[in-house]
Amino acid sequence: MATIGVDVGGTNITAAEVQDGEAHHHAKVATPTTTGDDLITAIVALIAGIADEHDLTVDQVGLGVPGTVDPTHGVLRSAPNLGISDDAVAVAALVGTGLADAGIGDVEVRVDNDVNVAARGEWRHGAAVGHDDVLAVWWGTGIGGGLILDGRVRTGSSGSAGEIGHTLYVADGRRCGCGHHGHVEAYSGRAALEAEARRRHAAGETTRLVDLAGDDRMKSRYWAEALDDGDVTTAALLDGAAHAIGMGIASAVTLVDVDLVVIGGGLGSRLGAPWAERIGRVARSAVFGQASFEVVTSVLGDDAGVIGAAALFD
Amino acid sequence: MATIGVDVGGTNITAAEVQDGEAHHHAKVATPTTTGDDLITAIVALIAGIADEHDLTVDQVGLGVPGTVDPTHGVLRSAPNLGISDDAVAVAALVGTGLADAGIGDVEVRVDNDVNVAARGEWRHGAAVGHDDVLAVWWGTGIGGGLILDGRVRTGSSGSAGEIGHTLYVADGRRCGCGHHGHVEAYSGRAALEAEARRRHAAGETTRLVDLAGDDRMKSRYWAEALDDGDVTTAALLDGAAHAIGMGIASAVTLVDVDLVVIGGGLGSRLGAPWAERIGRVARSAVFGQASFEVVTSVLGDDAGVIGAAALFD
Repeated sequence: MATIGVDVGGTNITAAEVQDGEAHHHAKVATPTTTGDDLITAIVALIAGIADEHDLTVDQVGLGVPGTVDPTHGVLRSAPNLGISDDAVAVAALVGTGLADAGIGDVEVRVDNDVNVAARGEWRHGAAVGHDDVLAVWWGTGIGGGLILDGRVRTGSSGSAGEIGHTLYVADGRRCGCGHHGHVEAYSGRAALEAEARRRHAAGETTRLVDLAGDDRMKSRYWAEALDDGDVTTAALLDGAAHAIGMGIASAVTLVDVDLVVIGGGLGSRLGAPWAERIGRVARSAVFGQASFEVVTSVLGDDAGVIGAAALFD
Repeated sequence: MATIGVDVGGTNITAAEVQDGEAHHHAKVATPTTTGDDLITAIVALIAGIADEHDLTVDQVGLGVPGTVDPTHGVLRSAPNLGISDDAVAVAALVGTGLADAGIGDVEVRVDNDVNVAARGEWRHGAAVGHDDVLAVWWGTGIGGGLILDGRVRTGSSGSAGEIGHTLYVADGRRCGCGHHGHVEAYSGRAALEAEARRRHAAGETTRLVDLAGDDRMKSRYWAEALDDGDVTTAALLDGAAHAIGMGIASAVTLVDVDLVVIGGGLGSRLGAPWAERIGRVARSAVFGQASFEVVTSVLGDDAGVIGAAALFD
């Protein structure tokens, strides 16, 4: 019997078989950004492909999806980042039916928000093993977040707990991708940083970032490379981002008082331990009172999503 | 058998017998701000006085104390607002011994942070009955906070969870009483508001607040009275405070996703429902995504502390 973890990202869907917290037989497909039906079809085909190729009898599938999820009923309530227009998609039920139709058999399907799932992965098998109170901060295009409190993943009354990227950094500050103003993400998400880099470049500032990315999206590896090359603009933008993330963590720890913060995500994993430490210094210098905590980098890296999704069955 | 709830405030210690969520036989004494020993002595004398006068056999005492508390061991770790110099005070054990020495007998003593205790009071017997996820915001000299998550009072890894007053409103903003900058409390606590009112008065602005308070502390009732009198400075300062508190609540709900927020404390209770609604409008307009929640005013008012302290035994 096999468990498949599926990590639905804005660009790709990745799936893998997960055994004892390790991922094998990875497969990947571009994420459809059209309808919920297309998304379900792509997920089912990806799982069926792995089962077929490696002759696995799949009985459990865990899914991490970027959006607001009702994990109890397996429903994706909204997923603006996927460009899906549907109001709500009963992901777990539909993937289960799709797998039955594809001849995979009777599969139990569970689903949660992608960063909750990544947090669960780090908690069960990665950087946060043994901790009951953990905040995961996923630094990529945006800033995602997941909370483990008292040894349980916090879902919240509306299913949207943990969204540290959309907590306040500067009231009435920069416009955030979500439409509100002054959020941590507006000062630190890769999309916001790219917009600022492009603005500076248009104003005459030279930066390696534009040499590397051209008109493409400024992927995490370009940021890391430009930083290694000593690019001043890159260093300044990432410094500002680390400050915003660190201050956001300080507020979050002041409110929920966790003893471990894990930094992951595309940019977070790429920049690694030195930047987790930098963020940790900002956070500890700004936290209230006697709260004591560490800020560390993700151990599972790109596999946090699939391992965490499979860990929905742990 | 009787349960006594004790509410240790910065100015007074109030104690009362609590039965079925109602407080009787209130007694009060000025809070010593010298040593932990003096504090313990005052608490013991207050309880002994009530027991004596009303011929009660006391077997349970609950205490709410402003500071960082380890409720498991009944220890007050730090209490800067009480002016107590001791590093840590084993409040529960020492009050228990004191009561035994005073001939009250064998009493079980429990202790928690004052706002956690008030939150518990509202949750068990007040505005938050039936809710599993609650944020209490205590608007007084400072801004205190308490969290109920998944039907449990959140203490946190360091015992300091819930401190919404010391989360960020404006990075690098006004200096807060805690020494950091830009916190919600620095824009909304009564002490910060009084400092701003005095500054404006010194700069030539006339305000009823100074007529009413003179050189005294600007108590909550002066703020309410000046507001009723149509004082422009008072309205502007309270509006700004409501904005800061509302934005702080928006960030907090975005992070922990509770469905109820209770506003209490000296100023919060005095200003009542219209201001809870005003704060709620700000918070709902700024919260991320689909989180849905109500902001209501405390039901227990001044009794939240003693009722909540007694509810440590519920």
